[in-house]
Amino acid sequence: MSKNIFFERKGPFLLNKLINNVNVEKKIKIFDVKPLDEANTSDLTFLDSINYLEAVKSTKALFCLTSERLKNYLPKNCKAIVVKNVLFELCNITRKFYPSADIDTPDKFLNTPKKKNFPTVKFGYNVLIGRKCKIGKNTVIGSNTIIEQNVLIGDNCVIGSHVVLRNSLIENNVVIQDGCKIGLKGFGFIPLKNKNLRFPHIGKVVLKNNAEIGSNCTIDRGSIGDTIIGKNTFLDNQVHVAHNIKIGDNCMIAGQVGFAGSSIIGDNVSIGGQAGVSGHLKIGNNVKIGGGSGVINNLPDGSIVMGYPAVSLKEFIRKSKK
Amino acid sequence: MSKNIFFERKGPFLLNKLINNVNVEKKIKIFDVKPLDEANTSDLTFLDSINYLEAVKSTKALFCLTSERLKNYLPKNCKAIVVKNVLFELCNITRKFYPSADIDTPDKFLNTPKKKNFPTVKFGYNVLIGRKCKIGKNTVIGSNTIIEQNVLIGDNCVIGSHVVLRNSLIENNVVIQDGCKIGLKGFGFIPLKNKNLRFPHIGKVVLKNNAEIGSNCTIDRGSIGDTIIGKNTFLDNQVHVAHNIKIGDNCMIAGQVGFAGSSIIGDNVSIGGQAGVSGHLKIGNNVKIGGGSGVINNLPDGSIVMGYPAVSLKEFIRKSKK
Amino acid sequence: MSKNIFFERKGPFLLNKLINNVNVEKKIKIFDVKPLDEANTSDLTFLDSINYLEAVKSTKALFCLTSERLKNYLPKNCKAIVVKNVLFELCNITRKFYPSADIDTPDKFLNTPKKKNFPTVKFGYNVLIGRKCKIGKNTVIGSNTIIEQNVLIGDNCVIGSHVVLRNSLIENNVVIQDGCKIGLKGFGFIPLKNKNLRFPHIGKVVLKNNAEIGSNCTIDRGSIGDTIIGKNTFLDNQVHVAHNIKIGDNCMIAGQVGFAGSSIIGDNVSIGGQAGVSGHLKIGNNVKIGGGSGVINNLPDGSIVMGYPAVSLKEFIRKSKK
Repeated sequence: MSKNIFFERKGPFLLNKLINNVNVEKKIKIFDVKPLDEANTSDLTFLDSINYLEAVKSTKALFCLTSERLKNYLPKNCKAIVVKNVLFELCNITRKFYPSADIDTPDKFLNTPKKKNFPTVKFGYNVLIGRKCKIGKNTVIGSNTIIEQNVLIGDNCVIGSHVVLRNSLIENNVVIQDGCKIGLKGFGFIPLKNKNLRFPHIGKVVLKNNAEIGSNCTIDRGSIGDTIIGKNTFLDNQVHVAHNIKIGDNCMIAGQVGFAGSSIIGDNVSIGGQAGVSGHLKIGNNVKIGGGSGVINNLPDGSIVMGYPAVSLKEFIRKSKK
Repeated sequence: MSKNIFFERKGPFLLNKLINNVNVEKKIKIFDVKPLDEANTSDLTFLDSINYLEAVKSTKALFCLTSERLKNYLPKNCKAIVVKNVLFELCNITRKFYPSADIDTPDKFLNTPKKKNFPTVKFGYNVLIGRKCKIGKNTVIGSNTIIEQNVLIGDNCVIGSHVVLRNSLIENNVVIQDGCKIGLKGFGFIPLKNKNLRFPHIGKVVLKNNAEIGSNCTIDRGSIGDTIIGKNTFLDNQVHVAHNIKIGDNCMIAGQVGFAGSSIIGDNVSIGGQAGVSGHLKIGNNVKIGGGSGVINNLPDGSIVMGYPAVSLKEFIRKSKK
Repeated sequence: MSKNIFFERKGPFLLNKLINNVNVEKKIKIFDVKPLDEANTSDLTFLDSINYLEAVKSTKALFCLTSERLKNYLPKNCKAIVVKNVLFELCNITRKFYPSADIDTPDKFLNTPKKKNFPTVKFGYNVLIGRKCKIGKNTVIGSNTIIEQNVLIGDNCVIGSHVVLRNSLIENNVVIQDGCKIGLKGFGFIPLKNKNLRFPHIGKVVLKNNAEIGSNCTIDRGSIGDTIIGKNTFLDNQVHVAHNIKIGDNCMIAGQVGFAGSSIIGDNVSIGGQAGVSGHLKIGNNVKIGGGSGVINNLPDGSIVMGYPAVSLKEFIRKSKK
């Protein structure tokens, strides 16, 4: 797949140098760590949950970090590297490949944009821009906004004031309102007493064509893999999108909604204000989630749910009347 | 009513040019689009919900966009313009009058404030101010704050740092803490596949005397009509106030509360942290809403409610004990 | 206890000048107002709730503002000053000692940091810093960030962009992500018609070693006493921490969680996204609070709770199945 333009990768490393006590031939070189569906034959992948049994079937990776319990789900072409704690080992290995992706040190090479480099972009005052950023035609950037290195922004976008963008690909006609912080590292770490071990966040945020993000939203980049907001999907103010969330096209996400990490939301989904969606869920297409709901289970296409925990609207009304 | 100082209005337009297939005399000129209670005889108004049957009785408008179902509620002086989708037609018509109110392009004419224009105002560093802003005596403005064109601020206000104010009237003795984004467009659009049709937001935000707004709050301006925070009403941090909300005087709104659009909140209302109020509701005076509640129905004066959906405190306790 | 470096204190005042109609010897001088556990023999303390009967036993204060109902809980060495409304009188007295702590006027003496004063600190662009701030070795400060007077920051911290820090002590290795507003006054006031009486906030925020704060969080300083985030405690994005909250070590607080004022949270506590904790509670060590929960009661060590109101996980599952 495509090169990671946001983080410099170290390596390659020998597989038996990456993990202790692993029984593999000595000379296998690993070039990167990738999720099941993005891994190539030279990458190490991982399987840490039964939620990903579908993706594991078609992985191209030849080696997969996994647990004793899950190892038998791997396809024949993929050798299991069995460890006690998949995420802990994955964290340590990823830190070797990407040693600077665990804390968001502010970009040290920001500068005032030079008009000649962006002849059709309208910049507000005190905009700061990193190296190698590209901004499309007729895009407007508000005052005090910071665009860190390598961020790509498409045509006809309107980015508000006091925005921070890092590790992000913004497509065309995207609107981002004031105060949004997009592309920062997510809330991922291995809890260790006195000094948590931070998970590197080497993914990015992708905002697709015609997406709109309300003011003071936070959208974290993916840990391994990306966080994606689909085409023509609109987010209201103060929405929190955690790492690795993938939201489909034409969705409406009302104010103060929160997404825990790694869930996949379909197309044409509408979510009412202050609702929350737990981590690692799959929400189908054309789903409607009522305001204030707490979704803790997968939802098939066309579901209409409400409540905490969210149940079908019919059941919610029945329970409320008790 | 008063002129819209924030948005330039096009027109007048002939009524039969504004809407297709409408059976009216050819020469009727419409000068503006306004809600029922603000419309004058030369304006077009609209009725899209049975929530507004009271307001419709006294409208001065001679023409009203409405649906087949609601047309008979109009008073005799007001002719119904019946359409299939009131909000869709209203959106299109409003966009003709106000073509630049649907996306918040940052103000292009910001400048460092000139001391001679604001002799008693104390500005922090890097404050940016638009054209025709007025700021009262002894008001303090924090660093990096942006005040866009035509915003009016009263006397003795304290505005924090990293604040954005646009399309707003701030009265006297108002406190706005750091990071607030006030007067931006709300979350209003007609969902259309691949390219939602954004509703113009031609209203403003009014913060009345002695109001206080906590840090990182977002208060959206009205779509048609205004968003209003009453006298001596205090909002805690991270509160989200959607378009057209009207909050009365002497209210206490705790942290992370969210209001969906167009609700009217009375005086002396207290709302606990993280509670949510659905759209288009009427909350009476002296109401108490417990923290975390989800209010989905109108509440009469003096109600004390809690829960999701919010019920009387007595019933909440009964249900909780089950 | 230690001197308040953030607020200038007036006084001392004679006790019978601080409160009307109080029957004490005329010449008693009071030097400060402090909570029960921090007060010295020359300070006035206060007891306004039965939640603090433990702390009252060991107070060193000789005088305590309290109510008729609570006066008998005072130890022998401490004389009760009985008033009708403890918080109202406390507010007025504290305002006499600290007349400028009720509204956060932005720091008037900010400046660009001078490299020679901070030789090992890496500053972004447009950083503003107040008088007497100290910043430790190798700390990084992002662009547009404001550090107001007297703030102390330790070694190896990473502070993001668009952050405001005031009245705060930041220890070593602390990470604060973009857009946080830390150390502002809390939501404390005596509601009075047309003009609420704001409670002075003379406490500070303490972020202990290795703490991490996600983007767009708000952490208010204490009113009397401090707001504390413990060692190696991580907060996700958009968390709201009200005044006087004390969170222990090694906690995990997910996105959009909110804490009302004055609660004490133990060590190793994990709280899921969007959960809320009411005011004046005591949450033990090793407690797990599920996402979206509303905690309204004290929780003993090791509790696992979920729901609104939060109950044991077992009971939550039982109720959900009904």
